Parts: sequence; structure tokens; C-alpha cells
Amino acid sequence: MFFKTLVRCAAEQVAAVGGKIRTKSIPPVQLKYKNMLKDPSKKYKPCQQVNLPNRQWPNNKITKAPRWLSTDLRDGNQSLPDPMSVEQKKEYFHKLISLGFKEIEVAFPSASQTDFDFTRYAVENAPDDVSIQALVQSREHLIRRTVDSLTGAKKATIHTYLATSDLFRDVVFQMSQKEAIAKAIEATKLVRKLTKDDPKQSGTIWSYQFSPECFSDTPAEFSVEICEAVKEAWGPSEENPIIFNLPATVEVSSPNVYADQVEYFSTHISEREKVCISTHCHNDRGCGVAASELGMLAGADRVEGCLFGNGERTGNVDLITIALNMYTQGVSPNLDFSDIRSVIEVAERCNKVPIHPRAPYAGDLVACAFSGSHQDAIKKGFTLQEKRRAENHPLGQYWRIPYLPLDPQDIGRDYEAVIRVNSQSGKGGAAWIILKTLGLDLPRNMQIEFSSIVQNEADKLGRELKSKEITELFRKSYNYGIENTNSAEFKLIDYVIQKPYSDSSSKDSQKRILTGQIQFSSGDIIDIQGEGNGPISCLIDALSKTLQVNLEVTNYTEHAIGTGKDAKAASYIHLGYRRESDNEKAYQWGVSVSEDVGDAPMDCIVSTLNNIIASGNIIVPEEYLNDSNNTANKVSA
Amino acid sequence: MFFKTLVRCAAEQVAAVGGKIRTKSIPPVQLKYKNMLKDPSKKYKPCQQVNLPNRQWPNNKITKAPRWLSTDLRDGNQSLPDPMSVEQKKEYFHKLISLGFKEIEVAFPSASQTDFDFTRYAVENAPDDVSIQALVQSREHLIRRTVDSLTGAKKATIHTYLATSDLFRDVVFQMSQKEAIAKAIEATKLVRKLTKDDPKQSGTIWSYQFSPECFSDTPAEFSVEICEAVKEAWGPSEENPIIFNLPATVEVSSPNVYADQVEYFSTHISEREKVCISTHCHNDRGCGVAASELGMLAGADRVEGCLFGNGERTGNVDLITIALNMYTQGVSPNLDFSDIRSVIEVAERCNKVPIHPRAPYAGDLVACAFSGSHQDAIKKGFTLQEKRRAENHPLGQYWRIPYLPLDPQDIGRDYEAVIRVNSQSGKGGAAWIILKTLGLDLPRNMQIEFSSIVQNEADKLGRELKSKEITELFRKSYNYGIENTNSAEFKLIDYVIQKPYSDSSSKDSQKRILTGQIQFSSGDIIDIQGEGNGPISCLIDALSKTLQVNLEVTNYTEHAIGTGKDAKAASYIHLGYRRESDNEKAYQWGVSVSEDVGDAPMDCIVSTLNNIIASGNIIVPEEYLNDSNNTANKVSA
Repeated sequence: MFFKTLVRCAAEQVAAVGGKIRTKSIPPVQLKYKNMLKDPSKKYKPCQQVNLPNRQWPNNKITKAPRWLSTDLRDGNQSLPDPMSVEQKKEYFHKLISLGFKEIEVAFPSASQTDFDFTRYAVENAPDDVSIQALVQSREHLIRRTVDSLTGAKKATIHTYLATSDLFRDVVFQMSQKEAIAKAIEATKLVRKLTKDDPKQSGTIWSYQFSPECFSDTPAEFSVEICEAVKEAWGPSEENPIIFNLPATVEVSSPNVYADQVEYFSTHISEREKVCISTHCHNDRGCGVAASELGMLAGADRVEGCLFGNGERTGNVDLITIALNMYTQGVSPNLDFSDIRSVIEVAERCNKVPIHPRAPYAGDLVACAFSGSHQDAIKKGFTLQEKRRAENHPLGQYWRIPYLPLDPQDIGRDYEAVIRVNSQSGKGGAAWIILKTLGLDLPRNMQIEFSSIVQNEADKLGRELKSKEITELFRKSYNYGIENTNSAEFKLIDYVIQKPYSDSSSKDSQKRILTGQIQFSSGDIIDIQGEGNGPISCLIDALSKTLQVNLEVTNYTEHAIGTGKDAKAASYIHLGYRRESDNEKAYQWGVSVSEDVGDAPMDCIVSTLNNIIASGNIIVPEEYLNDSNNTANKVSA
Repeated sequence: MFFKTLVRCAAEQVAAVGGKIRTKSIPPVQLKYKNMLKDPSKKYKPCQQVNLPNRQWPNNKITKAPRWLSTDLRDGNQSLPDPMSVEQKKEYFHKLISLGFKEIEVAFPSASQTDFDFTRYAVENAPDDVSIQALVQSREHLIRRTVDSLTGAKKATIHTYLATSDLFRDVVFQMSQKEAIAKAIEATKLVRKLTKDDPKQSGTIWSYQFSPECFSDTPAEFSVEICEAVKEAWGPSEENPIIFNLPATVEVSSPNVYADQVEYFSTHISEREKVCISTHCHNDRGCGVAASELGMLAGADRVEGCLFGNGERTGNVDLITIALNMYTQGVSPNLDFSDIRSVIEVAERCNKVPIHPRAPYAGDLVACAFSGSHQDAIKKGFTLQEKRRAENHPLGQYWRIPYLPLDPQDIGRDYEAVIRVNSQSGKGGAAWIILKTLGLDLPRNMQIEFSSIVQNEADKLGRELKSKEITELFRKSYNYGIENTNSAEFKLIDYVIQKPYSDSSSKDSQKRILTGQIQFSSGDIIDIQGEGNGPISCLIDALSKTLQVNLEVTNYTEHAIGTGKDAKAASYIHLGYRRESDNEKAYQWGVSVSEDVGDAPMDCIVSTLNNIIASGNIIVPEEYLNDSNNTANKVSA
């Protein structure tokens, strides 16, 4: 009973503001689970974890760039619905080199003549400090063919792999752990014999990479065991360590579990100084970047991946994201993405896979702000940064712009796309566009007014407004730089401001008198006169009297556009008047730009008043417009 | 000198295999750093970290679903170049409810009439157990308007926020920590007064959410301090805890640092049982999923985000990925994505932002394998799984398919797209397509042969082959289900197999004799006769003699297609012969499907031989083809 009363009270209260108490009951939704299982534990087992009671990686920081390995041309290319042509692979290869990659996996040369030939191309065209890497299964004739493909390189890396996970050994290879070790040793010894132990191959610096697949799904103890055996078979040195690649062939756990596995490996493998630990993360759980980064914290020395995360299924990890993440923490990645647009162009054309608009750093939308508060904050950030830089403020050197962790200019993008405007945008967004396109720094209240005009337009169109549309809307709304079309619109063709002769006493020393002429679009010219303390009040007085309206200036500001002798003056005025239709008080913002600072406010008043006339909110007395019966104040046109 | 000799030897050796020692030197690339800084530490400072010597989160596991909050209609919608129409917002809202979301942030109702009206719609149309959440700045008139928009709901959450990070307080708000606390308390008290403390509002279960923005860039001590003050002002209960949302408004650190911050907060806030910790991760560093997951390990009870990671810039975290990550570890997310295709359809249509082909779980390419070894492993996985399920093997119940962490059928996708074929594909891929489209389980060596035919075609076209193209290529290559076109092609129109009368002794009891007739496309009919141990050898003998070729069967297999009385027999034969052009030994695979098991091998031999004849590798003696001078064995047509 008491509750009912309360509800009724609430209903009454709410009625006053538009809200209503909901009386109907809508039953909760029961999930159907048509395909998904209500209890997935019957079908899916959690990932394996390693016991690492004394883990250290969460205490570490990334302080230097890893060795990078691009596998765009191998793992990336193999995943493409339409693989690259030979010409595209060549172009991509040279692009990778220009970005600073020193290790590039180019092919699976034993798989096809095309791959073999491309490996030869890479061997013959790589800079001396770039190592060409090729992947091969642990089988003798394939290894021989792969060594052939790399022969004569300045630097080359043979990359063998073997399934070590329980799943793969069980399902795909029916191979015991012992058999896997024996096979890995055999393959390693063969590679060794054919490369670094062969005196005829001494013109090449040979490196060796071994991948226990899928490392992330392999018991950590076994990964170490098989790699120990491989290491012994290869015989690495501190100068040219053996590369143990620890692939998350399929991402099967959260990235902290992968980091535990890497740290376990890093702290349990012997002769750590002769070992280079490499990560090769895929992105099945959307955590490839995190796994690679946490892997680095856990001891990885080298990171494999592709540009923009190309690769099998969800892709290899995106190397650009990792590199720029590092960069925004003040650590140089030793890769140069100064011209990200050209990298995007090459990758999209060669891979025929688009880069998503929300892809970190590279996506079209990632440096955009649509919401009003975001736009406002970004605008304030830029203003303060400029000010602090000008003042040599200690914070001035740092990039501290809200919502933008990276200066878009660092990767060759401009600020134009930063702020975009739709119905969700506030005053800052539209004002930013006007500042950037017309050089006008609108007063705050004018920003608010214009923003609601823009919001209405965006709401009406139901879409984003382009920069050009916003500029046009501004011109139209404020009669800015638009030709007169209404015969009642006028211009100030001449004026002079004087102290009244009769009035030299100190009491009225501020008083000025304006006399001048205005000409309507109709051609008619009218004499005007008004008085006040300065040009603005004089003109307002003159126009009020002439047009029989009661004008009032509630806000006026000016700023310079440009510097030196080319500088112009921008003026903003907020004009009050009585609206013709209902005689209510109304206001209108106006703006104008003049070469002469003195003319600026006059131009602005005329422009604003014309805008009000054009809107029909002030009607010019008919007597002034080609009414030959009336000659009051009228001059022949 | 020694080195030069070695190089020369290597060159000689390599010449034999195609590789050459590279003699030219190509200088290393020097990076230009046109826009990026060589030393970015001058411009970018590393993120703040919290000191957490005794962190526990890396030891934890995710064992149950969090509370989910979809902000698709607020944070997601505000980020769209073309925001949703009202009708689209309604459709999206009901979709979210059908997926199982119990907390939905629907709008910023004080920002526009459209948002206010939509909040009213949500209030009036939400199931009783769904809480409608609305965001509002900490300002009085906006809070009042927001409470109005939610009045009458069954369950409602007011979400206020305040900038707490040094950057935002400094750049955007010029507000001290003390001022921020005072403002947060004031806003909270006002919300409390207008909602749960107002008897007229008791028809609604009111919750309150406060976000210290940007939490991830705010000193952890201050986040706790301001939230303590807010908690005291609100007065939460265990039954209806206050929600502290800890946003990574901008992702500024690796996810382990965020987890440390969450654990610090979780272990330092008082009355933890009256607090619900919520994550709200953005994806600027590509680690939004990882940060949310590590945040859960660190104590978060609730996860905010959007479907498919829509949201400002790089997006909010993708809730679908987090939910399905959980699912593949055997933990129910309490969200139902059984029909992911309909979710994709609604999201792409309403957001007008595409889902990337590599987006986890939802992308077009994520359950695809192009590479031969992947295809092979997947095929083996399916085969073993079927076998184990049939045998009730304990591993049979678990999903253990290489390269596929999730059964695509669980989210309403089929296996057809799993294996796709291009020039990088091996035998498994094409064989899988043939199995799925024609029901033919090709023998291993036939797979290898067909795969090279497919590879050549894909190489020639330079793109992926569609399933239909592969099937057509198979039909053409193996004369499978294709009409005869060559007059020399023939069919077996009749035959009988008998024991020879004269030969009943035990010594030759296996001997059989075939007599029959073949008819060429030309119309001519020829009697044939051959002997052997069974139908295959008899027919081979008969055709060898008749066509004057030396046929040999090197492989023959059969399997049933379908079961019961509709079952058919598929036969595969590998036929050796002497090639007409060079008299060299050559081989051809062939296949046929017959309703009668007895006919199957005969049909297969005829089909295969016809294929060889059509290719011109066996020429039928002219005497059999409309040569009226020759009547040997010839029967009138």
C-alpha cells in the first residue's frame, strides 16, 4: 500500500518532467543456446599453464627495441586469399628494407619453384646487413633444397620447425616426444653439415632458427628439453646465438600465461647467452600484441610478425603497433614509420586485405574525435602546447594532447582528420574546423551557437558532416563571404566620425558623431547619422534610427589573422534586436574579416544586420527601397 | 687468400644447384627519420606505474563470467562517422537484450533531445532484469535532466565521470585534486538526493557508477582517494554495490600495468564488498582485450565494451572476443552468440563500420586455412575426432582440431569456409573441397596429383580458387561426370565374366574370362575378350589387347558413399600405360561412382582410359572407328 502510494507520487512528479513510471512488466530474456553450450567445459579444456612461483616479468620494462623479423612474405603471404605476385613480393621486400627490417623471412623455398626463385631474388638483392630467412620442414630433401636457395647470401637463416604440442603430436603426426627430439636433432645436424660446417659455404653468415610448434600449447619442460638437444646439435656462439622461436601458433591463453612460458624457457635453457629467444604470436584471442610485449618483458630478444597484423586466420601480430607502442613510451623501435601512408598503400595493394579503420595507429578513424568533449579537450591541448612551447615551459617539449597518444605528424599524417563532426559533436569540433579552414577563432558563445546549427544539420542528414559542408554552413549561417541577394540588404559606402564642434567641453569629450551613407542592393542610397562613444556605438545608433529598430551590441571581439603587413582583422559581434514577428528580444552573431582594423567592426555590424534582414527578422521600412514618393534622407542612386 | 679460395669453391658447388655466390655488396639502409624522432624520449614520457610488490593477479584464473555492460549505444554510437538512426538504435538495443546483456548504457540523455527520447524508449521497453545506464557530466542541470530521462525504469544506473588524471586536470579543466574531489562529492550527493533518497523514485532500483577519468593515467592513490569520497557520499550496500569504473580512456600502457592499477585499487578501496569494479578499456595500443582480461584477474567484477570493438578511435574493447575467449577455456560467458552471423549483420548495418576479415571469431578469414600443412592438420583433426566419437574415446568429447580454437558451428558458422585453396595450399585443401562437394575421399597419392593441378591453376590465375572452380577442375582433370566428346572414347555396353569350361583343375581355379562389347562415340561397336583373376584384370587384359596398349593397374581403392539402399560405390584407379608420343611409361588417376558395387571398377577403368584417350596419350587404332574396310571384331552399329 505504502509502495503504491510512492509510485503514484513518483508518477505525478515525473509527469511534470516528461518521464513516466512504467507499469507494464517485461519478462527477462532466457538464452536459447541453439549452438553454443550452456556449459562449455564439456567440450573445451582450459590451456596448459606453467608453474612459475617466482615470476619476474611483471616487474620489467621494455627499454630497447628487439630484433625484428618480418614474416610478411612467408606467413603473411601464405594466408592471403589472393597471394602476392612476384612483382608485388619484390616491392614489399624493398619496402620492408626501407623501414629498417634486418631479418626477413621471405619464403618456403622447398614448397614451389616460385618460392625458390623469390628466395634467390632476395639473396641477390638484400643489403649486406639484412639476413634472409627461409622456412623448411624437418625433412632431408627439403632442407637440401632450402640450403640451395640461400646459398651465396651475405647473411642467411634456416628456420626449421617440428610439432611438439600434445595435440599436434597426437592428431597430426602420431609421434612420441622421444621421436620428436630425434627428428629435431637429425634435421639440425643436417642443416649444420650443409651450412656452417661446410667450408664451401663460408661466404655466408649462417644462422639457425628452430620452432617447437605450438610452443604455447606444449608443456614448458618439453620445449626446453627439445631445444637443449637442438642447441647441442647446432653448437651456437655468443656472437651468433641460436634462435629459439616460441610460437603461439594458435593463441590459446591469455598473454600472461604466454609470458610465464617464455620466462620459464628463458630461465631454464642453458647457455642463455648463446640463445636468442624469439616470439611469434598469432592473434586468435585478440591478444597478439600483448603476448609479444609481455613476452619481451619475460626475456624475448626478438619479435616476429607482419605489418598491420597480416597472417593466418586472425593474423600474425602487428609489428607496427608494437613498434609505435614502444615509441610512445619514449623508446626508439629502430624502425621508421615516418611515412605510414605509403606503408598502408603498399600493404593494402599487395595483400588485398584492407586495414581496418580502427587499426591502432594506421586506421582512418584512430586519430579522430567526434564527441564534443573529446574535441574540446584536444583543442585545449593544442592551444596549451603552443603556448608552453612559445614560453619555453618545461612541459612544452612533451606531447601532452588528450586522446592522442601519438602525434599524428610523427607518422606523416596531418591534424586535419583529427576532429570530425557529426550529431554527437560539441562546440569544439565545428569551431576547430572553422579555425583550420577559415582561420577564424570563434568566441565561446558563438561556438555554442554554431555547434547547435551543425548538430541540427547532422541530425537532419543522419550522418557526419564533411569539413567543406561545415564551412559552407558557417558561411550561410553568418552571411560570411556570401554575395547579397536581397534588395533590402545594404552596404556602408562611406562614413566619417568626428567630435562635435559644439561639444569640446570635458564632460562630453567621449562623444563622437558618425555621418555616412548606406546603399541598398536595390541601388537606393540613404544618408545616415548617429552618435556614441566610438565607431561601433555611432554606427549602431545611426542604423537603429534609420531602420527604426533598436539594436544593441552585447559582445564584441577581434583578433588578427596572419602577421606583418598581410595581417587582417577578424571581428565578431553579438547583436541584440527586437524581432519583427513577435517583438521579442532576439540575438544574432556575426563575423567579418577586414584588411583595415578600423573598418573591421563596421563591416561586421553591416554584415550581421544584413543577415538579420535576410532572415526576415528585421524588415527595412519600404520608404527606403525604390519608393519614389518618399525622399526623406534619400540620395539619388 | 684462403677465404677467396673457399668462396670460389662455394661458387662452383652452388652453380650445380642453381644458387650463386653474390659478389656485389649492397650497403645497409640508413633510416631517414623524416617525421619520427630517432630519440623519442625527448617527446614522449613513459606511462605511470603503480608500486605493487606483492601482486597476485598473475596467479589467478578467470573462472566465471563478469557482469557485462554494453556501451554500444553510447560510446560506440558517439564514435561513428554516421551515427545510428533512432530506428537502428532500437533494433540494436533489442539485439543486445537477446544476446543476454543485463546492463546497457544507452545514451548521454542530457546532450540532446534525441538521446533523451531514446533513453525513455529504453526505460519503457527493457525487460525487468535489464538495467538502463545513462552517462552524465558532473553538473547539476545535466544530472537533473538525466534523472528525468531514467525516471520510472525498473532498474537504472546513473553514470557520472570526472577527469582525475594529471593531464586532463592540467590541460582541460585547470582543476586541483582537491577541487575534483569536492565536485565529485557534490555530484554524487545530488544524484543520491534525486534518486535513491527520493521516496518518489522508489519504484526504481537505482545504481550509481562513477568513473575517475582517465584512471589508467591517474596516480592510483588519487583514484582510491576520490572513490572513497564518492563511496561515502553515495552510501552503497552489499546488495547494490557502487560501481567504480576504471577506464583506460586512452590506452597508455601495456596491460600488465593496467592490471597492477586495478589490483591496487581493488586491494586499497575500503568496504570492497560494497564495490563493483568495472573495466572500460580502449584499444589504442591494440591490447584492449588483454587489459580487460588481466583486469578481471586483478579483481574486476564487470566489463564494459562494445560488440566487435566499436568505439572512439581504435574502439572500445570487443566484448565478443572476451566472451568467446572465456568460452574456449570452458567457462560460460552467459552471453549467447549462437548466431554470430545475425550479430555481424546488425552491427555492420547499424554502425556502418565493417568487421575486419581477421577480427577474432567473427572475421571472414579467421576459421580459414590456405596453407597445405594447416589444411592437412585440420583434416586429420576432424577425421580423428569422428573416429574417437564413434569409439566413445575419452578424448572424443573435447574439441581438439588443430588451428581452430573454437568449433565454428558453436557460433552458427559452417565448416565450408574452413579450408580454402590458393597456390599456397597443399593436397589436404583441394582434397577437403572434393570430399565436401562430391563426397569423394581421394587416395593420398591422388590428392598429391590433384593438388599440383590445383596449384598450377592458382599460380596461373594468381588468386584463390573458389570451391566451385576446384570442383570443375577435378571433373575436367579426371573425366568425372563429363559427357564424351571424342569419337574415340568408348563405353562398356555389355560384359559377362565366367570360369573357362575347359579349366576346372585346381591349378587354374582363379582364372576368369571376360567377354563383352564396347561402343565408341562414333557409334562403332567392338567385341572384346580378356582373361585374369577377377573383373579388373580381365577388363584390363581385354582392353589392352583390343586397343593394342599395355595397361597396368598400380592402385585401386573403393569406398561407399552414403548408407543403406541409397549407398553408392566410389572407385579410384591408378592406371599405367605407354605414352603414344614417346613410348614412355605414364600414369593416370581415375575415379567413378556407380550404383552397383560390381560395376564400380569397370566404370572406373573405362572412364580413366577414356580420359587418357581424350588427352591424346593413347591413340585408338583407326580400324575401330568407322573404317569399313576392316571388320575384325567389329559388329554392325
